[in-house]
Amino acid sequence: MNSPVSASDKDRVVIFDTTLRDGEQCPGASMTFEEKLEVADILDTMGVDIIEAGFPIASVGDFESVAEVARRARNAVIAGLARAIPADIARAGEAVRHARRPRIHTFVSTSPIHLAHQMRKSEEEVLEIIAATVAQARNLVDDVEWSAMDATRTPLAYLARCVDAAIKAGATTINLPDTVGYATPDEYRAMFRTMRETVANADKAVFSVHCHDDLGLAVANSLAGVEGGARQVECTINGLGERAGNAALEEIVMAIKTRGDVLPYTVGVETTMLTRASKLVSAVTSFPVQYNKAIVGRNAFAHESGIHQDGMLKEASTYEIMTPESVGVSKTSLVMGKHSGRHAFREKLKALGYDLGDNALEDAFRRFKDLADRKKDVYDEDIEALVDQGILTAHDRVKLVSLSIIAGTRGPQRATMKLDIGGVIRTEEAEGNGPVDATFNAIKALVPHEAKLELYQVHAVTEGTDAQAEVSVRLDANGNPVTGRGSDPDTLVASARAYLSALNKLLARGERLHAHAAA
Amino acid sequence: MNSPVSASDKDRVVIFDTTLRDGEQCPGASMTFEEKLEVADILDTMGVDIIEAGFPIASVGDFESVAEVARRARNAVIAGLARAIPADIARAGEAVRHARRPRIHTFVSTSPIHLAHQMRKSEEEVLEIIAATVAQARNLVDDVEWSAMDATRTPLAYLARCVDAAIKAGATTINLPDTVGYATPDEYRAMFRTMRETVANADKAVFSVHCHDDLGLAVANSLAGVEGGARQVECTINGLGERAGNAALEEIVMAIKTRGDVLPYTVGVETTMLTRASKLVSAVTSFPVQYNKAIVGRNAFAHESGIHQDGMLKEASTYEIMTPESVGVSKTSLVMGKHSGRHAFREKLKALGYDLGDNALEDAFRRFKDLADRKKDVYDEDIEALVDQGILTAHDRVKLVSLSIIAGTRGPQRATMKLDIGGVIRTEEAEGNGPVDATFNAIKALVPHEAKLELYQVHAVTEGTDAQAEVSVRLDANGNPVTGRGSDPDTLVASARAYLSALNKLLARGERLHAHAAA
Repeated sequence: MNSPVSASDKDRVVIFDTTLRDGEQCPGASMTFEEKLEVADILDTMGVDIIEAGFPIASVGDFESVAEVARRARNAVIAGLARAIPADIARAGEAVRHARRPRIHTFVSTSPIHLAHQMRKSEEEVLEIIAATVAQARNLVDDVEWSAMDATRTPLAYLARCVDAAIKAGATTINLPDTVGYATPDEYRAMFRTMRETVANADKAVFSVHCHDDLGLAVANSLAGVEGGARQVECTINGLGERAGNAALEEIVMAIKTRGDVLPYTVGVETTMLTRASKLVSAVTSFPVQYNKAIVGRNAFAHESGIHQDGMLKEASTYEIMTPESVGVSKTSLVMGKHSGRHAFREKLKALGYDLGDNALEDAFRRFKDLADRKKDVYDEDIEALVDQGILTAHDRVKLVSLSIIAGTRGPQRATMKLDIGGVIRTEEAEGNGPVDATFNAIKALVPHEAKLELYQVHAVTEGTDAQAEVSVRLDANGNPVTGRGSDPDTLVASARAYLSALNKLLARGERLHAHAAA
Repeated sequence: MNSPVSASDKDRVVIFDTTLRDGEQCPGASMTFEEKLEVADILDTMGVDIIEAGFPIASVGDFESVAEVARRARNAVIAGLARAIPADIARAGEAVRHARRPRIHTFVSTSPIHLAHQMRKSEEEVLEIIAATVAQARNLVDDVEWSAMDATRTPLAYLARCVDAAIKAGATTINLPDTVGYATPDEYRAMFRTMRETVANADKAVFSVHCHDDLGLAVANSLAGVEGGARQVECTINGLGERAGNAALEEIVMAIKTRGDVLPYTVGVETTMLTRASKLVSAVTSFPVQYNKAIVGRNAFAHESGIHQDGMLKEASTYEIMTPESVGVSKTSLVMGKHSGRHAFREKLKALGYDLGDNALEDAFRRFKDLADRKKDVYDEDIEALVDQGILTAHDRVKLVSLSIIAGTRGPQRATMKLDIGGVIRTEEAEGNGPVDATFNAIKALVPHEAKLELYQVHAVTEGTDAQAEVSVRLDANGNPVTGRGSDPDTLVASARAYLSALNKLLARGERLHAHAAA
């Protein structure tokens, strides 16, 4: 059986996560190979039905990460995206080949505006393309999804002919995206009803929604599509995605779970993992989650006004329609201090969901002891930051050895930095407009590069003035942004680590492309 | 005429902004008196029909800001919130008295769960309360809004009796909020239809929607309510508000403007001011706007994937349903350097929407020259940060004189700080776990206080490593958080300024409460 749900289970809605494809392709959200595996792993563990792992023809890096996600996935169907081009489909097939349950997802534009301006093809030509490309994909795998790009701006009669052609050619899932975020719920629901009523073989395929949030309607449109007969929802963690993003997975899942009375569907996602998944995606992309974001924002369960607080104390259900625990929110808990031993540390890591090898564990423990010497209270979040920092820097070519800074209102600010560059130690002193600028100038002098700083952000890992700083840095090299993170009790050291993390990603990207060109 | 729209204009939807009330009451978003006036001013200028300025009985500060917003408003109706308590209503009436168009907004819970657990009243008792309190409000002003708290969990038959009682007592607007963010669009639309069909005098009042985004449906629910006959939408800039927040004003307005074909309503808001309003609210609350937030997120109009970029170049409408210009997004523009004169600077401030007095202008110009000496390119955003910093610190008791720092990987980090405290200069040297901690420890030694650091964030004002840093600091004093901001090319100086800004707000709050107690 290749379909993730049997046809008899008519109220089961399958969750198709595209954080690694539609999410990752939004400006500044690019992830490294290792980060993609980490995200795929949590999605697979939490019960996402289908993971769209990437767009294999887009780059060697994309191909490799899709192939590795496919090899590792334990439960989820792994999809690779392909344009309606034979080379794309072949490459996608190759990438997902080792998955237990592979899927090729191929798409073509169907709206008049796309046909006229982007594709420059006639309606009949597009129908032929659909038949040929879906058939090609179906020769490679049994599970083929076809998408009508810009479906919501396509006349229904022509859309029905496209859907019919795709199903006849063997598509098992038909996705009708609101590519430009233009639809309203009533329109979107009606589109699915019409397709299911007018296409002869409509019952042979699972229909799918894919909504963008340009007008703030992505979740409502997705649910309306399900009411219209769709049984797959394409969405992303934190609503990541192009422009205003996709429908947020956590909102779709919790709306169905919370309002089962009027949305009588079932989903397979373990909701208590939603908060962890949200934090991971926010961390690897450095995209902050706004405080009042539904389900996963830091204020999502916070009640401020006296009236509401009073009500909550008397009876939680007066203001709470779901519990924080149901989405995995737990109170920050003090874990341990400088006297905690190796065993307790290993147990804590397990509880936080980490599974480190012996060397990584030893390294993390050493850095935990250093931190405990400097910081009175060590929280779960501190340990997460510390372990993440280790995972991030494990493969780095350029490492920070030491840094010292002189700064303040009386400039110029000065940084003295020592780096380990592929085994060679080098030192540099630099001035700058502020200590962060001086620090970055020292790095630029030691490792000359062209990339431009596009984004710089700091936040505190926990409360209190002795909290660790977590810094995000986005560098842009010829329109390809990479984001690096670093954490340390010293903001300036964290800034140096974050810049080096981004720079190491750039260097690794160069090497990987070079390796491929040589092969 | 007290109603913001005439009854004949049946497709006009009035925009009721509650950023200053429902928005400001969410944890950590509290604003100072001056910040509230700034937000009210932009709302009034952009054509918001009704501004809910606060909850006058909540505190002396709330009362004063509502009264001042009322005095200053040029066009908007100014509403003050009141529970169904005579003292609340009297106080709200007093606060909005000087508005050209005053409104009292009074509310009471109507759902069985609230009646049983929070109010401990019977249905009949609540009906009597509605009649009495609405009548009291109507004796004070001609424009009275009544809200049924938790309307969406109230049986329709009882809700109709409540609405009927409120209209009979003189309510001119009937608001039926989805207080807990529980409704779906179909349910919410149906509720308004039922009320308008079953309540005898339904045509005597304007119905209003007020939605929370707990399940990601606030915008869809609001629009569904309008389809059901509501003609007022309560919303906030950036969707600020309790828990997951309220429906976002910018999304409501742009959905109606963009989809006039299926949402045939008119709104009076000037859309080109949406981005500026969003930035202002984000700045005064220090709540970041997520990158993929609809309309106002930094990625809302960004097209990353090669396919989309290709389409955009061929024909913008292939992927763009509204233009960035329509919501006031303009490209960052280089404005001037160290040779720009006083006249050019004054013109630039005018273009950015500032209207400074002579002293403030002279001070800002001096700081602009300092910045231009240190930073090669001075952008609009730099000037905004610089002027905002001046506005923020104008009334401060404690001011930064100088700061010097030694930091880096070899601790301990050390800060030497000089402060002007009410005219007296004092100096302190402190160590800390990192340079920020050392800086804050110096402040704590100079101005002892109990407040706890709850949030620390830094972002860069513009791109490039010599960008200014803008720091937000949230201090919590006994459950009352205040947020301060500071900017400077030196992150550590910006951190000191932000901490002092929050501390000055705490000191001002103490003085204002003290002044009132003495009066």
